[in-house]
Amino acid sequence: MDLKSVIREIPNYPKEGILFYDVTTLFKDAKANRFVVEKTIEHCNGQKIDLVAGIESRGFILGGLIADKLGVGFVPIRKKGKLPAEVISETYEKEYGPDLLELHKDAVEQGQRVLIVDDLLATGGTAKASAKLIERLGGEVAGFAFIINLSFLPGMKVLEGYKVFSLVDYESEKA
Amino acid sequence: MDLKSVIREIPNYPKEGILFYDVTTLFKDAKANRFVVEKTIEHCNGQKIDLVAGIESRGFILGGLIADKLGVGFVPIRKKGKLPAEVISETYEKEYGPDLLELHKDAVEQGQRVLIVDDLLATGGTAKASAKLIERLGGEVAGFAFIINLSFLPGMKVLEGYKVFSLVDYESEKA
Repeated sequence: MDLKSVIREIPNYPKEGILFYDVTTLFKDAKANRFVVEKTIEHCNGQKIDLVAGIESRGFILGGLIADKLGVGFVPIRKKGKLPAEVISETYEKEYGPDLLELHKDAVEQGQRVLIVDDLLATGGTAKASAKLIERLGGEVAGFAFIINLSFLPGMKVLEGYKVFSLVDYESEKA
Repeated sequence: MDLKSVIREIPNYPKEGILFYDVTTLFKDAKANRFVVEKTIEHCNGQKIDLVAGIESRGFILGGLIADKLGVGFVPIRKKGKLPAEVISETYEKEYGPDLLELHKDAVEQGQRVLIVDDLLATGGTAKASAKLIERLGGEVAGFAFIINLSFLPGMKVLEGYKVFSLVDYESEKA
């Protein structure tokens, strides 16, 4: 299946000169969702995964589906101030300074192997911060699953040492 | 299955005097997720549903799962400024004034029957605004699915005339 055909490209979003890859058009396509989930599960085949963590908020859609197919629970990694119980936090770099990602303190148990899911790997900042959150709770990062990897950005390098799976690669900033 | 046993109650969140129902503990339980999805699908049985719309962001997790089980696409209804393509907006009342919910203009096709999904029905403000968004695009609201209904709040009344399904009911503000 040609996933690029269901990913919408939006020029100059969120600002001039940036080409944004919109996966809402993929999510609207039931077959494309299933393809993404099946390919991700195939890739995880044989690995022990105890839990799926989705990064707010597009990672929630895919993360929930992958957790269900694996028969494991789902935990959300959220932006600052969104989780109601006790949390731990990690900073990550945003364009205009640092921001926080949070995870419930009781979201991961000691030794659990956690698959981290998001729609897109770019600079790797939120992904790396998510891994730190899991590891601080005693969990082990089983790997990362993305739909898209922007391979002209340093995400893969930032996640060196981790297993990273993605289905669609964009190699340059231009369409 | 006793869903209340997997929903965490957090007193005085987000502010003094409010008892918050935290579904992250339910999402962490694979069996509970499946139970919620199966019961919702059972309830929808026989109805024509073409699309599932999930309300940001807890509605994304459950909405994605229900869409997949129904074999239909998923579209996100998001807070202001989060969707990258052309949107339509509806205001809804928040505690300190109005806010906006948005939907991509091409998210729903004329005549499509859309199931709207969120974790919790409280005052019904975001749910009603979501229905208006769907209807403005020519869609028909097939119904609403929630995990929780806070029946001491006016949500059900606000959604009068629509089919509303929920699995767990809390009848008073106190635990």
